[in-house]
Amino acid sequence: MPVSKRMSTIPPSPIRKLVPFSDAAKKRGIKVYHINIGQPDVETPPKAFEVLRSFKEKVLSYAPSNGIPELREAMAGYFSGIGYDVNEKDIMVTNGGSEAIYFAFMVSLDTGDEVLIPEPYYANYNGFAKMAGVKIKPLTTTVENGFHLPSEEEMEEAVTENTRAILICSPNNPTGTVHTREDMEKVFRLAEDYNLTVIGDEVYNEFVYDGREHSSVMHFKENAQRVILIDSVSKRYSACGARIGAMITKNREFIDAAMVLAQARLCPPTIDQVLSVALYETGPDYLDEARREYKKRRDVVFEELGLIEGVTFHKPAGAFYTVVRLPIENAEDFARWLLESFSHEGETVMVAPASGFYATPGKGKNEIRIAYVLKEEDMRRSIQLLGLALEKYRNR
Amino acid sequence: MPVSKRMSTIPPSPIRKLVPFSDAAKKRGIKVYHINIGQPDVETPPKAFEVLRSFKEKVLSYAPSNGIPELREAMAGYFSGIGYDVNEKDIMVTNGGSEAIYFAFMVSLDTGDEVLIPEPYYANYNGFAKMAGVKIKPLTTTVENGFHLPSEEEMEEAVTENTRAILICSPNNPTGTVHTREDMEKVFRLAEDYNLTVIGDEVYNEFVYDGREHSSVMHFKENAQRVILIDSVSKRYSACGARIGAMITKNREFIDAAMVLAQARLCPPTIDQVLSVALYETGPDYLDEARREYKKRRDVVFEELGLIEGVTFHKPAGAFYTVVRLPIENAEDFARWLLESFSHEGETVMVAPASGFYATPGKGKNEIRIAYVLKEEDMRRSIQLLGLALEKYRNR
Repeated sequence: MPVSKRMSTIPPSPIRKLVPFSDAAKKRGIKVYHINIGQPDVETPPKAFEVLRSFKEKVLSYAPSNGIPELREAMAGYFSGIGYDVNEKDIMVTNGGSEAIYFAFMVSLDTGDEVLIPEPYYANYNGFAKMAGVKIKPLTTTVENGFHLPSEEEMEEAVTENTRAILICSPNNPTGTVHTREDMEKVFRLAEDYNLTVIGDEVYNEFVYDGREHSSVMHFKENAQRVILIDSVSKRYSACGARIGAMITKNREFIDAAMVLAQARLCPPTIDQVLSVALYETGPDYLDEARREYKKRRDVVFEELGLIEGVTFHKPAGAFYTVVRLPIENAEDFARWLLESFSHEGETVMVAPASGFYATPGKGKNEIRIAYVLKEEDMRRSIQLLGLALEKYRNR
Repeated sequence: MPVSKRMSTIPPSPIRKLVPFSDAAKKRGIKVYHINIGQPDVETPPKAFEVLRSFKEKVLSYAPSNGIPELREAMAGYFSGIGYDVNEKDIMVTNGGSEAIYFAFMVSLDTGDEVLIPEPYYANYNGFAKMAGVKIKPLTTTVENGFHLPSEEEMEEAVTENTRAILICSPNNPTGTVHTREDMEKVFRLAEDYNLTVIGDEVYNEFVYDGREHSSVMHFKENAQRVILIDSVSKRYSACGARIGAMITKNREFIDAAMVLAQARLCPPTIDQVLSVALYETGPDYLDEARREYKKRRDVVFEELGLIEGVTFHKPAGAFYTVVRLPIENAEDFARWLLESFSHEGETVMVAPASGFYATPGKGKNEIRIAYVLKEEDMRRSIQLLGLALEKYRNR
């Protein structure tokens, strides 16, 4: 029985293609530092696990399709606390930020419509676009420009008669770039001129460093009807496995339409919703500490990157990723070589080739994404290994 | 900002439309018996909650996209125990049976393709068909025929050049019908003749009464490459809120394609997977007890239905639902009237109008679905209330 045509046309992820090589390296006894994925090692707030232990129900029943009221209230409380106008009615609780992105595409775009997204971008947007039958039109950004938005003229050129939305991920995965107020003003001018929905994927909102300010889509209150905010507990609270996120909007039609999708899949997991109430009620101390920790790691990464000849990078102000250009031709080949043919004192490092984060063919071929999700000394060692490997690879 | 056209064309669910009336009745102090939804009151195996309490991780991390190995092994163990040829490689763990159905549609059908489904059918199939862009072609079944399949000629007539799959839900939601071996042989003859994928939604497999046998799509081993089994912990283990299910198939192409979809949404919730290991390892005593309990409730329902004049029903052999024809014209109006205008000693009953379970316009208008998910005395009272109400409604 053949698979559907639509599923046979999706290219395998360049990151996924490397997993067998990493498994094989480990089997040979080599220690692999994983700076290729965004799985933080920061502890989840312990309160979340206390909630688990005191869960008292005897029947693990369905929750409401849009989320339990306690969670929607806790989310509204968190967002009010950082100055956003969000109340529980504006919130659709989802299976992670992932489902929130899918819902946002489904309610704001029709089959064949286009959404503008600055590239490089989070590779899973491709999957959701595929599922929703919409087309991603990339707006290319470059390391030389710190991965900030292209000019207004360039952005306007990308608009076609099918463009219905623009998605801005800030702080950005994979670049770490924090889009400035000026960047966001450009986005909203474009949105007003062409009547676009603005989707803000801001799941890294708490991870902004160097005294910089996070400019949210929620700050553009006069545009509230065209704004959808994507949220998630995964990164902020180091709770990736809870699979709890939210689609947030003041646009009632969007929420009502999302409810139809939400009802089909019944509800997000009940226990994880109960546990997430405790997450959204976590005090600022936890977030301050996490922010300090990531900043320290970032500084170590860039200290070490600065010692490697020939790499091009910008030091980003947010999230826990960066995209770096290497003095080689093919980062996919290099990433594989790192796992297959390189080791130093029994250790190597796994990186994500950046080509998977670009939609434009050929882009990012000599770039990698680094996730600084390991503790300080491991991050230092990882980048040192990268430097040692680059030298050996270029002279092989 | 207007919602996408595709989302504005989905009609509101006839069941959902009743919720405000049920809320209003409760506000007036009326006790409402909910036999309209499949939320069982049977206790979840306590072992599941013990697992929660002993969860020891400090970081709630992502799980593998296709599920944790321990859960896939526990699932394979359960299915091997009931004689199916299933190993952990054949299993994709999903966010409930819901996502498994969506994945099955996506991997076996292209946009515009048709899937045959006997009607009345589980209304949420409509949502997944919409998301996957596929068309449901109903095969009408009737209460007079115990909701068994139509003749082979009728089934064949429904096949078009776009038909790619047939979905059989057995034991059935909403009818309770257990499709016989002969029914299933018809399905597979059709599938062989027209090269169709056979999707078996068998989440109620353990709830078969009167010594009848469950005939599974997994029994047709020579057809294994065209078979996808949908499973879920929701009903079998009374764990609807865990949102853990599975898409199971020996067809490697289907599993690989589902993996692409699974990776986009990262993973099903980690804790619920750990907890579900305990569910799949639950011994037969728990299931025997649950089966006895549901059978008792079913018998009470039919004992009481038999005392009401003018209702047409068949006593089904499985699941915990039945579709009943009432001696009235409009079941939606009656269901609303039950909540708005009827009460007996301060109590009323909420039922699901069956029209939402049919795709053919006009079908099921005088039918309701009853879920026997409440304990014996509450089920008895619910059906008695239905009888009292019918008399009053017809003489109003």
